[in-house]
Formats: sequence, structure tokens, C-alpha cells
Amino acid sequence: MLEKTNQVNLLFDFYAPLLKGKQREYLELYYLDDLSLGEIAEMHEVSRQAVYDHIKRAERQLFEYEEKLLLAAKHEQRQALLERIRRIVEELADGEAREELQALLHQLSEMD
Amino acid sequence: MLEKTNQVNLLFDFYAPLLKGKQREYLELYYLDDLSLGEIAEMHEVSRQAVYDHIKRAERQLFEYEEKLLLAAKHEQRQALLERIRRIVEELADGEAREELQALLHQLSEMD
Repeated sequence: MLEKTNQVNLLFDFYAPLLKGKQREYLELYYLDDLSLGEIAEMHEVSRQAVYDHIKRAERQLFEYEEKLLLAAKHEQRQALLERIRRIVEELADGEAREELQALLHQLSEMD
Repeated sequence: MLEKTNQVNLLFDFYAPLLKGKQREYLELYYLDDLSLGEIAEMHEVSRQAVYDHIKRAERQLFEYEEKLLLAAKHEQRQALLERIRRIVEELADGEAREELQALLHQLSEMD
């Protein structure tokens, strides 16, 4: 379950803007704010089943988007490469270049 | 028109997997393969108007996806940062580190 939660959270970071109204809203309340289905249902005055359906559909969509665009997978690969680059840069004797490179690598890493 | 063609081509690179059947197909024939609306219509035995409608909808979707996910904009920013990093790395006195970094930066750039 924790594994699933982590995956959904990660995918949500990348694809949230593509999800539609209720799907995005309920998914966020359930996974990010950790409310129960019952609590979300009560809050929105809808059935528990309706909340469940929206969340399940939203989950499916997140996994479908990832299958098509691979943003999370590419993010991970990029971060791994950046980490290798950072380690080499750390060891550079040229202090000025090292600091400049570290600043740029930090920017690059944050962008992702 | 060339500007528009370039934009659509760029966005197509990022979002093509999200487009549906005919929309993707006609857009590709029109923008990437440079066929005319008439030629596509004849090839698929549909009206010129139908081809036009699918292409227009596909274009709108590409621009909407970019508005939401900004993949093309981020790509451009990342490439600009990578270019600055590459220029500093080129000047490094430490030949071994330089070559290792260049190889990793190349991988990073290609991934995007």
C-alpha cells in the first residue's frame, strides 16, 4: 500500500495538471492529505462509491500518462546522471569552475 | 506559417503519444510529411473538411498540453543550462574529469 501511495504521489507531481476537476481533487485529498473515502464523501456530500470511482479512474489515468510520456522514469534517470556529474565536479581542483558548475547543476536539478 | 509549423513539430515531439488515432495520424501527415489537406483526404477517403477539423483539434490539444505541462519550455531551459555547463567543462585543465563529464553531459542532453 505504501508502495502504491508513493507511486501515485510521484505521478501526481508530474501529471496533476492533466487530471480533471473531481478526479484531481479527490485524489489529492485521499493520497496527499490522507483523508479516508468516508471523510471525502462526507465533505463533498456524495457517496463513498462516487469518491472511490473518481479516485480509481484518476489513478488509472496517472499510470496511463506515465506509460505514454515516461516523465517520472526520465526524471529518475536524469537525477541519477546529475548525481554522477555532481560527484566528479566535487573533486575538481579548479575551485572557480567547481563552484560555477555546482550552481548550474543545482539549477538543473531543481528544474526537473 | 513556418513559425507555426516549427512550433507544432516541436510540441508533437513531446505530446504525440497523448493524441488519439486520426488526430495524430493526420497531424503527422500534414506537418511532418508535408502532405496537403486534399492529399490526406484522398488517401483516407474522407472529406477535406474532416481532415482539417482533426488537424485543428490536434493542434489545439498540443498547445493545451504545453500550457499544462510546459515540457517544451522546460526542455529549452534545460538545454540552455547544459550548454553553459558544457562551456565551462570544455575549459577544464583536468583532462580525465573533463572527458568523463562531457560523456555524462552528452547522455543527459540526449535524454531530453
